This record gives sequence, structure tokens and C-alpha cells, in this order.
Amino acid sequence: MPQGQPTTVPDDGLTTRQRRNRPLLAVHTGDGKGKSTAAFGLALRGWNQGWSIGVFQFVKSAKWRIGEQTVLERLGELHAQTGEGGPVEWHKMGSGWSWTRKSGDADDHAEAAAQGWEEIKRRLAAQTHDLLILDEFTYPMEWGWVSVDDVVSTLRERPGFQHVVITGRRAHPALIEAADLATEMTKLKHPMDAGQKGQRGIEW
Amino acid sequence: MPQGQPTTVPDDGLTTRQRRNRPLLAVHTGDGKGKSTAAFGLALRGWNQGWSIGVFQFVKSAKWRIGEQTVLERLGELHAQTGEGGPVEWHKMGSGWSWTRKSGDADDHAEAAAQGWEEIKRRLAAQTHDLLILDEFTYPMEWGWVSVDDVVSTLRERPGFQHVVITGRRAHPALIEAADLATEMTKLKHPMDAGQKGQRGIEW
Repeated sequence: MPQGQPTTVPDDGLTTRQRRNRPLLAVHTGDGKGKSTAAFGLALRGWNQGWSIGVFQFVKSAKWRIGEQTVLERLGELHAQTGEGGPVEWHKMGSGWSWTRKSGDADDHAEAAAQGWEEIKRRLAAQTHDLLILDEFTYPMEWGWVSVDDVVSTLRERPGFQHVVITGRRAHPALIEAADLATEMTKLKHPMDAGQKGQRGIEW
Repeated sequence: MPQGQPTTVPDDGLTTRQRRNRPLLAVHTGDGKGKSTAAFGLALRGWNQGWSIGVFQFVKSAKWRIGEQTVLERLGELHAQTGEGGPVEWHKMGSGWSWTRKSGDADDHAEAAAQGWEEIKRRLAAQTHDLLILDEFTYPMEWGWVSVDDVVSTLRERPGFQHVVITGRRAHPALIEAADLATEMTKLKHPMDAGQKGQRGIEW
């Protein structure tokens, strides 16, 4: 046999390069801080690779405009202006999603969450983004607003090369099972324990 | 007594606002992923607040140019060009630090780490930055390259309003004790477990 020839080739239909660069499903869970922050840190890396980034925030109040959103959207503008990095879309649930203009569904968070997931399914099928961050998506899963089975099977069967990061406490075991990478953030110590309130630049 | 007057005022010499907005010492430790990524995510927020950001990487090979460095340095340029956000400095240890040009100290990591810490002490005393990230600084502490007592007392007594984030596994108990916020990242699942190698955009 020629030197350097692998003795067995995995029967997975992938090239060596494809096998190395597989799209990842990552889950950041646990009660500690850093779940979302680490996800947005990954978005920085992805932007730098020229990836299309899609962020979907499922729970935080739409009134909050966190620093990461401002900066990542600014990086998205920079991409449009100079071609550096990749495009960035940031969508928040709140009272409906930014892609819908319908009033009336404002107060029904369950309905809004289900609509958000349907939109994400459409984007996964269309391979719109290279990295999708589903921030605090564990809660709609926990509360039955979206079907855990549907989420897991959709993610398992997503086409092409799409990284997905899901954040939030109490990730469903089936989601952990489907994940390639799962990290639990555990609080060892928090300033709230000493009666300190959240502050600008640290909490948002 | 007039309404709204606090019955007791803590004897700490701080205004209410100062007491709310206290500089934080945060530690990201544990064997899981996300320790550095979450720290760089905080840098995004800080940049957006107009903070001066100083990143000091103690262990990663100086050959690595991780995506976060490229993007945060780009944001620092943007600040210089447009006044948006804040300034960013990113220093890596490797063979000496970028602020030294001396040859000869290239191969002594212990010496380089000690020099890095001395520079950080000077900057803390001069209040050069609003947010300092000491990435993988737990290792020089663990290996005795810097004195744990010196680090902890310097951080406890740092003047003004400087947030400090320290990342790395096996954070020293005295560092956790001194921290306002400590999070442990624990691996639940990692793609390396399935034989997958690190890949661009995810690991760097």
C-alpha cells in the first residue's frame, strides 16, 4: 500500500477536510455568568472569518440594547462599508420580532418564541448564516413554547456548514446529547451576593 | 428625619453611586471552554462604553493571532479614527512582550511572565486602563512565576476604577477569595472527545 494512505476510511461520505471542519452545535448552560458573553465572543471570531452572523435573542427585554449588539452591528456596517469581516444581523424577540411588523402578537411571548423558531428553521434550510446564536433559547424549550424534538431533529439535520450556539440555564438533556460541545458555567461568587447591583459595561 | 434619608451610611467613604459602580475583579476558571471568550466578550461591552481596554495574554503562543485580537484592535483603530468606543491595547507574552525590544529574555517564560506582571502593576498604579484582561494569568501564578500574595494585594489595593478579569484553569483560592465575581466553566462535552480537531473560527 502506498505510504500515507489511510488504512480505513470512515464511511461517512466526508473528505478529511470536511471531517475536520464540521459544523458545531454548542450549548452554554448553567447558572453562572458568561454563557451569552462567550457566545458573542465567538461571534467576534466568526465575523473575523467573514462569516454571516445571525443573533436571535429569545428572552431579554427588547428595551435593552446591550453593548454587544451595538458593537456587532457596527462590525456588520464595517463589513458593508469596507468588506472586512462578515455581515451581522441581530434580532430580538420582545414584542414580536424585528422582521415582523404585525401588532397584536406583542403580548404573547409563547407565540413570538414559536414564530422566532419558525424563522430560524427557514434560515437554517436556506443556509442564510454561518453562525447562528440562539440566545436564551433554552427557556422557550423548557416552557414548551417550542418542541424539543423539533429543535433537536432540525439541528441534527441542518444542511451545509452552519455553526449554532444555544445559551441559557437548564439546557434540555436531549439538546446536550445532540451538542458537539457543551459547557456549564457555574457561579462560584457573584457581586449580587455582596448586595451590589448590576452595572453598565459589566452586565450590559 | 427627612424622607429618603438613609438611616445609616456605610463608613466606606463612598457615594451611593460609587458604591453601586465598584470596580470588579472577575475570575473565569475551570476546565471548560469560554473562559477567555467571555472575557473578550466583556471587552466588547467595555469598548462600547468608551473604556480603555488592555489585554495581556500570558501563555498562548505569540504566533497565534486569534480572531478576537484582530477585531478588538480594529475597534481600537475605529476609536482613533472616529472617536467611537475606546482605545484597545493587546499585548502577548510569547518571546518577550511587545513593549520590550530586548532580545535574550526570549526563552525564559518565567522571566517574561514576571516582567509582564511588573508592567501591569505600573499600569494599575497609573490607572492606564478601565478594563484589564489578564488572559491565562492563573498559570504564572500556579507555577510561582509571580507571587500570589503580590498579585492579590496589588489587585485589592488598586486605585481608582479599574475592572480586572483573570482567566485560566485552577485559579488560586486566594484569588477567588479576592474576586467579586468568579465563574467556573465546566466541560460537559467537547468535540475533541469525538476525535475532532480544533478549527478556525471556533478555536481561534
